Amino acid sequence: MERMGHEKYFLGIDGGGSKCRAIVVSNNNEILGEGVSGPANPVNGLDITIASIVESARLALENAHLDNVQLSDLIVGAGIAGVNLPMLYKQLTDWEHPFKVFYLTTDILIACLGAHNGDDGAVMITGTGSCGFSYVDNKTMVVGAHGFPQGDKCSGSWFGLKAVQYALLELDGIIDSSVMSSKIREQINISSAVELVEATSGQTAGFYAQFAGIVFNAANNNNEFALKLVNEGADYINKMAKLLMNNNPPRISMLGGLSPLLIPWLAADVQDMLSPPLSPPEIGAIFFAQQQDSIAC
Amino acid sequence: MERMGHEKYFLGIDGGGSKCRAIVVSNNNEILGEGVSGPANPVNGLDITIASIVESARLALENAHLDNVQLSDLIVGAGIAGVNLPMLYKQLTDWEHPFKVFYLTTDILIACLGAHNGDDGAVMITGTGSCGFSYVDNKTMVVGAHGFPQGDKCSGSWFGLKAVQYALLELDGIIDSSVMSSKIREQINISSAVELVEATSGQTAGFYAQFAGIVFNAANNNNEFALKLVNEGADYINKMAKLLMNNNPPRISMLGGLSPLLIPWLAADVQDMLSPPLSPPEIGAIFFAQQQDSIAC
Repeated sequence: MERMGHEKYFLGIDGGGSKCRAIVVSNNNEILGEGVSGPANPVNGLDITIASIVESARLALENAHLDNVQLSDLIVGAGIAGVNLPMLYKQLTDWEHPFKVFYLTTDILIACLGAHNGDDGAVMITGTGSCGFSYVDNKTMVVGAHGFPQGDKCSGSWFGLKAVQYALLELDGIIDSSVMSSKIREQINISSAVELVEATSGQTAGFYAQFAGIVFNAANNNNEFALKLVNEGADYINKMAKLLMNNNPPRISMLGGLSPLLIPWLAADVQDMLSPPLSPPEIGAIFFAQQQDSIAC
Repeated sequence: MERMGHEKYFLGIDGGGSKCRAIVVSNNNEILGEGVSGPANPVNGLDITIASIVESARLALENAHLDNVQLSDLIVGAGIAGVNLPMLYKQLTDWEHPFKVFYLTTDILIACLGAHNGDDGAVMITGTGSCGFSYVDNKTMVVGAHGFPQGDKCSGSWFGLKAVQYALLELDGIIDSSVMSSKIREQINISSAVELVEATSGQTAGFYAQFAGIVFNAANNNNEFALKLVNEGADYINKMAKLLMNNNPPRISMLGGLSPLLIPWLAADVQDMLSPPLSPPEIGAIFFAQQQDSIAC
């Protein structure tokens, strides 16, 4: 690829609790290369987050065969989990980064920009965690994004924790046994309450999220507890949608690994208002970098 | 104090998440001295647990002015939190302790022995965590003791976490505001959802337990959510009591900081079966050491 004097290289980064994904694009937003590295949520450590960001950028440049481009040439838009907390935002903006420019925002904002191709809109994200977000006329609104275990209602970790709590009560004989609890025990190969406590003690949101699918399966098979849980979660997302629609976003999308399971349980009017996401978060990070760059120039 | 050739010195230790208490007693079980040191729950670290055990023993000897007695003279009964998990039990029994003998059991068993002065019985403990336990004809039964956040229903941390989850939903406008949530925000001096997330992120059971009193106050003032929560917790303890009574313990007591608040909410027949605890857990640890010693001799 020929390098022109005034060419700008935009790199988009989507950093989350399990991985960090970077893409580098051409002037006309064609993806030239991508790189995936390790965890990048500063809640779990600033150093590893910084290392993952740099590693993903290097891998993206390598993948694009942009041998003449250095990290210091890149205009970076980074959406990083956890930086909705002011303390963590400050830690990362204080970082002496190796890039030309480093525009930092939340993973949620870039997901929203991606879903609506850089235009105004709203998203509801249900994966390991959960949150709602709208971006309309440069004003943002956040619902949730509270973290595990104190928040993230209707997320994978929320369903999983509730299911494990239920399985423990069952193993103690407090409540009747159910297929759902035996599926949980099968999945992590345990047979007693003590083993389940050992397996779950001190575990993170990601561990609990692995059980969310079991809850939805059980709900689809009319398990009473699972039905109650899925309906409670769906009710929360219905209310989240209504709060977000108060800002009149032109579009609203659902994102995250749990969304395909959850959408059929939402109220009909909420399902009707959903539009499919147009682009992934890392493209949203590119839009973010370009918007910030045009303001700066 | 005169030291006799065949005198035995028994030391009782009650080790938990916030402190470790030791007492040393005379041949006729008169308390000669006591010592209190730091945290002793190996879930939170083996080294600090061992340091706290040794420190509390030294302080008890010092307090008793038993200048001629060494740690290596002591027959120790220790009830330590967390050692219901086999892995942690093994870690502590593998320890090359400085005592003459080190009889290890759970903090729950010594609480039960204390409550019934060394005789058979059952206890239900609701403090930062929760559990039920019975000891009848040398057979034990455990209900709960599952830890935070996956278990410990109706404990201080369980009430506190639920109350914080509720306050976060309220700050987002998902549910109506209530006096209970504003009390929680006042107690830790925060005014926004982001501040509440920062204050609660990664916190332990002990942090959440500080809000349990607010929930009971709100329930006594007929707050709908607090009433639902307290009744759900009480229902769990009612079921726990019935499971424990299946073993026919001659006595059953309620222990733990939350118990005075909770007892009035229990079913009348459960309240009627409760007997007051006779001695504290560290005395139970002495009974345990003496029982084990008489078996060994």
